[in-house]
Amino acid sequence: MKIVLIGAGNLATNLGKALLAAGHDIVQVFSRTVESATALAQIAGGAPVTDIEQVRADADLYIVSVKDSVLGELLPRLCKGKETKIFLHTAGSMDMNVFEGMAIHYGVFYPMQTFSKSKEVNFSEIPCFIEANDDYAHTVIADMAHELSGRVYELSSADRKYLHLAAVFACNFVNHCYAISEKILADHGVPFDVMLPLIDETAKKVHELSPKEAQTGPAVRFDENVIRMQAALLKDQPQIKDIYERLSLGIHRFSKK
Amino acid sequence: MKIVLIGAGNLATNLGKALLAAGHDIVQVFSRTVESATALAQIAGGAPVTDIEQVRADADLYIVSVKDSVLGELLPRLCKGKETKIFLHTAGSMDMNVFEGMAIHYGVFYPMQTFSKSKEVNFSEIPCFIEANDDYAHTVIADMAHELSGRVYELSSADRKYLHLAAVFACNFVNHCYAISEKILADHGVPFDVMLPLIDETAKKVHELSPKEAQTGPAVRFDENVIRMQAALLKDQPQIKDIYERLSLGIHRFSKK
Repeated sequence: MKIVLIGAGNLATNLGKALLAAGHDIVQVFSRTVESATALAQIAGGAPVTDIEQVRADADLYIVSVKDSVLGELLPRLCKGKETKIFLHTAGSMDMNVFEGMAIHYGVFYPMQTFSKSKEVNFSEIPCFIEANDDYAHTVIADMAHELSGRVYELSSADRKYLHLAAVFACNFVNHCYAISEKILADHGVPFDVMLPLIDETAKKVHELSPKEAQTGPAVRFDENVIRMQAALLKDQPQIKDIYERLSLGIHRFSKK
Repeated sequence: MKIVLIGAGNLATNLGKALLAAGHDIVQVFSRTVESATALAQIAGGAPVTDIEQVRADADLYIVSVKDSVLGELLPRLCKGKETKIFLHTAGSMDMNVFEGMAIHYGVFYPMQTFSKSKEVNFSEIPCFIEANDDYAHTVIADMAHELSGRVYELSSADRKYLHLAAVFACNFVNHCYAISEKILADHGVPFDVMLPLIDETAKKVHELSPKEAQTGPAVRFDENVIRMQAALLKDQPQIKDIYERLSLGIHRFSKK
């Protein structure tokens, strides 16, 4: 397929590589900045373009991977003159119907993973959630999804919103806990890599036990001496102290359910 | 060495197995409940005992792994009549000097890992933090630590408190985020195992990138539409909504530092 990538961020970069490896022809890469468009075009192929009006109309598929908040402004200008083509976006929280009235065939391809430009991922293991508004779009999107990943699921826009929310907890909030941990260690001269075996085991554990069964530490033991003392260590960092207290209470409450 | 284990919880169970595998002789296992004492004695060896006065005085080493809040009441009764023996505890947040005035030779052996009775761990990869009050205790504790683990570090009680706090963020709070994620998925009929590739990649990523560099998602992009919409999905679960908002704000603040 001839594909145009709209957006050149972390997800678009990793998806572009995977599409190229699957034998597709990336004909253009759009980004608001010439640097980003050029960087991804050099990796995935195609011509960089920064003016949405310059996006060519003869591709088969347009894949939109941009910040959700700019979609509303971008889509009418993108779809214009390409109404019979297939459009999809890759956002967890955006409804499929964002394309309604602008295109005939459209859908969603949401690869649930944390992507960074500098970190290679194995796309074939990523759970991908697809949705389409008609059979034609569905066939094209499902075929592409199965080429890229061994784990393809159908999911409605309504349920995908909750999936994305669950992913924010399991990934972004987890990573923020790592970041706070790193900061506390750095403040006391301890390198972050001493924490990696614990981080790995915590992730590995929930392959075998449910997170509720896997929980350990002062909050689930309700070891109030330790909880009070640890909160006091954070007295000069009230926002982190606040997170400490709310998560400790949350663990205690979950354990009693 | 002849060793008595005081406590038969998650840490004591995993440590007892590792000590047995290293060729030590577990001669007694104390727990307040006969079930726990017997269960660990069957795994690690030795006689179960539930009365602290019945702990024999002829062992070389007494390893205390109990909830921090019961240590104060337990230690005087444990140490009495065994003043020349070596005592150590395994708690991240407890000062070494909790033994002061009760024993002559004492210290700390803190294996920084999340232990569950039902989940096997490879002890040799666990970072272990040791401290001792004199050379004699240090030699015994360091020798034992090096037998059990390839990653042994010296750390003072003062710094170990912060290490333990950092571990609570990197493990217990991370696991609570997994638990919330599982709950959101379960409420929408999605099995938790779709989340495992994302969980694994999130953990793997911080081996290569710092958590700050590794961060992705709506909060670090400051995608306010998505943040507002996701918070609204949690309107019937105010405690989880509160955690969502505070962690999103925390990510945004960290990213600007």
